[in-house]
This record gives sequence, C-alpha cells and structure tokens, in this order.
Amino acid sequence: MKVIPLGTSSGKPTLKRTVSAVAVVREGEWLLLDCGEGTQMQIMRAGLSPSRLVSIFITHLHGDHFNGLSGLLSTMGLDRRARQLVLAGPRGILEYLDTLARLKILFVNFPLDLQEFTEPERGAKGYRRERTRMGEWPPGDPRGLPVADAVPIETPASVYEGQAYRVSALPLDHRIFAVGYRVEERPRPGVFNIEKARALGIPAGPLFGRLQSGQDVQLAGGLVVHPSDVLGPERKGKSIAYCTDTRPFAASVELARDADLLIHEATYTEELVREADEYGHSTAAQAARIAREAGARRLLLTHFSSRYTDLGPLLDEARSIFPNTSLAQELVEVDV
Amino acid sequence: MKVIPLGTSSGKPTLKRTVSAVAVVREGEWLLLDCGEGTQMQIMRAGLSPSRLVSIFITHLHGDHFNGLSGLLSTMGLDRRARQLVLAGPRGILEYLDTLARLKILFVNFPLDLQEFTEPERGAKGYRRERTRMGEWPPGDPRGLPVADAVPIETPASVYEGQAYRVSALPLDHRIFAVGYRVEERPRPGVFNIEKARALGIPAGPLFGRLQSGQDVQLAGGLVVHPSDVLGPERKGKSIAYCTDTRPFAASVELARDADLLIHEATYTEELVREADEYGHSTAAQAARIAREAGARRLLLTHFSSRYTDLGPLLDEARSIFPNTSLAQELVEVDV
Repeated sequence: MKVIPLGTSSGKPTLKRTVSAVAVVREGEWLLLDCGEGTQMQIMRAGLSPSRLVSIFITHLHGDHFNGLSGLLSTMGLDRRARQLVLAGPRGILEYLDTLARLKILFVNFPLDLQEFTEPERGAKGYRRERTRMGEWPPGDPRGLPVADAVPIETPASVYEGQAYRVSALPLDHRIFAVGYRVEERPRPGVFNIEKARALGIPAGPLFGRLQSGQDVQLAGGLVVHPSDVLGPERKGKSIAYCTDTRPFAASVELARDADLLIHEATYTEELVREADEYGHSTAAQAARIAREAGARRLLLTHFSSRYTDLGPLLDEARSIFPNTSLAQELVEVDV
Repeated sequence: MKVIPLGTSSGKPTLKRTVSAVAVVREGEWLLLDCGEGTQMQIMRAGLSPSRLVSIFITHLHGDHFNGLSGLLSTMGLDRRARQLVLAGPRGILEYLDTLARLKILFVNFPLDLQEFTEPERGAKGYRRERTRMGEWPPGDPRGLPVADAVPIETPASVYEGQAYRVSALPLDHRIFAVGYRVEERPRPGVFNIEKARALGIPAGPLFGRLQSGQDVQLAGGLVVHPSDVLGPERKGKSIAYCTDTRPFAASVELARDADLLIHEATYTEELVREADEYGHSTAAQAARIAREAGARRLLLTHFSSRYTDLGPLLDEARSIFPNTSLAQELVEVDV
C-alpha cells in the first residue's frame, strides 16, 4: 500500500495547504479518507483516476473534511461512472445527499453503497451502523429513501470487507461525532517454495498458480498436493490507522495497535494544548504519545492549523517522543 | 470596477481551470458572482480579502457554480466575520444552508441577508423574490425559519441596492432555473469646476467637498450655491452583465444592453451547437451574437468545456462576429 496526503490543513485552506483528504492506493485501486474542498483537484494532481476509487470513508461532517464530496461525486457522474462506490461515515450523509440531489446541486447516477454510523449513547463504547440497501441510491426520487438494517456494532467493528483490504472503525473524541479508521490489507499467501514443488514432482505451469491461489491439485500419478505443502506461512498484510479530528483518545491507540503507519492529526504544538482540548484536537506531542502507546511503526502528522507556516516545531515536538515521525506533505507518496 | 475571473471551467475542474466564480472589485469592496468548488482558494490567490466581500450572487444551484459556498462561508465564520453578507440566488439556498448547519457541516455566525428567487411560471417573464428577514440567519435553531415578504417582481428587477452599485437580475434559459445578473455602478457626481467655484467666491476647503457630495452651501455673504452651479453633468457608472449558464436568450441581451462588459458562457464551439442546446449552454459564436445585439462594448468568454485544452478556436469564432472579445483567464484582472 501507499498513502498520498491530498490535504493537510485544519479548518480552512492556506495558500500552501488544502483541507483534509488522504488517498490509500493498493494495486491500482484506491480508497479515500475524508474529502475536503478541492479534493477532486488534488486527485487530478496526484495522477489518481476517480474511476479506480472504490470507497470513501468520512471521519466527520465538519466542512473541511466533507465539502469536496459533492463535486467529486458529480464529476464521477459526469464521467459516466457505472461501478458502485462505497461511501461510509457518520449519520447525516444520506440527508445531505438527498438535499443536494433534490436541489440539483449534485449529479450522481451510479450506485452508492452508503453506510452511516450513529453516535454511541453516552457511556457506550460502540456505535450503530445503518446500512442503506446497496445500489438503491440514487433512486428516481431520492426523498424518503428507507435506511435499512440498523445494526448495533461491537467495537472495533469492521465497516468494509473488500477483496484487497478490510476497514474497521471506532468513535473518536471530537466536538461532534467523529470516527477513526483502520485499513488492513488482507493477509497474502506465503512464499511459494519452488524447490519443494519440484521435489514433489509438480510440473512448472498452471498448477503452481492454482496452489498459490489456495487450491489443492492432483498430479498425473494420483498424488494430491495441498497449498500448505509448497507455501510458506501466510504473510500479514500492512495496516494503516487514520485518526482525525480527535483529542488524544484510547480508541486511537486501539485503531493504531501495531499498525505500519498511524496518520494522526497534530493541529497545534504543546503551547496550545488548552486550545487543542477546547476545540477537540491534539497536539503533535499527543499524537506521538498515541503512536508510542499503540506500538505503531511510523507516525505521519497532518491537519495542521493555518497559523503555522513553518511546521518544523510540530515535527520536532513529536520526534522527541516518537522518533519515526514525518509531516504529511501534499502529493508526496508514503510507502507502507 | 475591475473583474477578476476566479474559475472558468464548465462542469468539472481541469488541471488548469477551476469551476465558475468571478470577483467584481470596486474601491476595496467586492462582490462575488457564483462560487464553485475551490473559490476560497482562488480568492486567496487573487489577494482578495473575504472580509471586504459584501455580496454573493449565485446564478443557479448546479454544483460547479455553488459547491464552494459552504467552505467560503465557514472560513469567514472561523475568521470571526461580524459584518452582514448579502447572498442572493435561486430558491433552495436556504434549505441547503439549513441542512448543512443542522448537520454541523457549515459554521456561520454572522448575519446573512438572504434573497431567493423562484422560477417564473411557464410563459411569464419575471420571477418572484422571497426575502428572508435581514440578520435572521443563522438563528439558534435554523430549522423552520420563516421566509417572508414574497414579492412578485417585474423584469428587469433590482435585487440589490448598495451604496456603490446596484444589481439586477433576469431568468436565463438553462436546464434548471438560472438567473443572469447586471452590476451597475451608481452614477458618479460630475467633474468639479474649480474655475466656476472661484468665480462664485467659494473658498477652497470643506465647502468644495460639501458641494461635491451634493449639498447646498451658503457663503459668508449670504449667497446660496447649489451643486449644479459648480458640477458638470453626472457621470454614468460602468456596467457588467454576467450570463451563465444559458442557451442564447433574450434576457441576456436585455441584461447586457449597452454594458461596458458582458461576461457570457461559451461552453462549446459551433461544431457542438446541438450539444449546447441539449445541455442548456451557448457556443462562443452565440455569445458573440448576444454581445453584438446588446451593443455591449466588450465580451469576456468563460465556462469552457473541459474538452478544450486550446481555447483559441472559441476566441476566433467569437471574434469573427464580435471583435472586442477576450477569453477569461483565471486571476487575470480585466479593467472595466
């Protein structure tokens, strides 16, 4: 997997920074975390194709994480997308899309698989997932679309199960209901041991591929070979956690547990720790403590207040606690 | 007045062009025509201050003219704007803002003077204006805000009367209800004739200013001097028409009558005249014919289809009909 930060500014854009969005790219397909204003332009600049975007995960409905959604969806509509798009985030997205479609602001003619999460009750750790039936939006008249299958969710809960990766989510601690995500690659098959295969008398060719994809094969002499006979142990997939906007919070540690990369907001330096708490944000030092506690391998800071033209102090602050920290730079790829 | 195109792309942005928005700047204050995604970034790049923005006029609610509104309003909210903002456009804006405020997408804490226009009945030329009471939005709970003072409007109708300029509007001919605008500077006082003033015995100083601002003055000897005694004929203000999105239409001619500048959409060249008609747009040649028929002094083409990387053919086509034509270039000022 690789990560491409598309927007790194908190609240409003600056001349140098766009508001929140991150692309996670895996083998030609990609997913989008948040969609602030200007995301579709950043997608073009990053050379990503909207037609290969399979899912969008929204952390919360503040405009700086969400205002680009309408334009991006409409552009995919204009480009005659036919493929379904998964869209998940806090409850309110359906009402938003319905209003925009009714007012003709939005042009969407491809199926959306919309999942909305509702805020946990006070004291409860989990949240409810409400799933609109797949492919039902947009209907002829978007008003009154039933939201079906409200399911109470245990935490940490899977919110997306794709072929290549799975995504789980937990509520964060912000001014409004916000959700953090963990993206995990599916485990990959173990390394194919050609020596062992030859020793068993398997001819090189299609049988190798069948074993690699997990199927038993029968040889001409009648011997049945199982994948475990020729494959090493299953290789663990890479994992990414995305935690914004939030105060430092236990759920972020849980999402980032042993992750290869934690992308965490760092709106302020420690000098403004009170403002961070008041507005539901984290300092760079707090982000670093989350990364350390979670045992994450690497920390990528993002969501910088527009007051900072020089981000050096945020980086220094975090590195003093968690050395393997970088600043998210827009359109600069991070290999995971 | 000067005009700064902020976005010139039709439907979706390209790597070179942003979606629709135009700034009209006059003596430090300015107004905004349309507000596509990315407008607040273009405002920064143009060096314009959102705090000096006095009014926003929306032509229609298609996202490429409208999706930047939420971010721009929220940024003014974050910047603690206190001054009222005039916001006018087709009906639906109030419902949109109410939905966004309820979902916490939008953060607005300054008074909006919102005017909504409703589509004329079939065959009628005018439209209805519905005016929300000034300063009432955003209220504590934005739901259920009464929309007051629905007034049937004759055409062409004034929709804004400011100190420096007035704005009038007419319905255009697009796929959905769209409105064109005419911005006119207030007439300026005539040239002050110092020779005449001296001959009348008026001492240089504050009395000059009072006469210039239209007040009578009484001299020490008892003589009353009227402004018309020392001022030349009133000087006509400059005027701009903004017509997008629309098929070629009589209302555009009316809005652009004798205007100093007509900003007209030119989505396609004549080769695609059928597509233009089908989607409710104009070709460059059609825009030029509108400018010629209206007796406009200058034509500025905008709203270019993303299929054109070279806009030369659109310019050539329009100039063959109306020679004083230019292409709108983003962030390049046009003096009026």
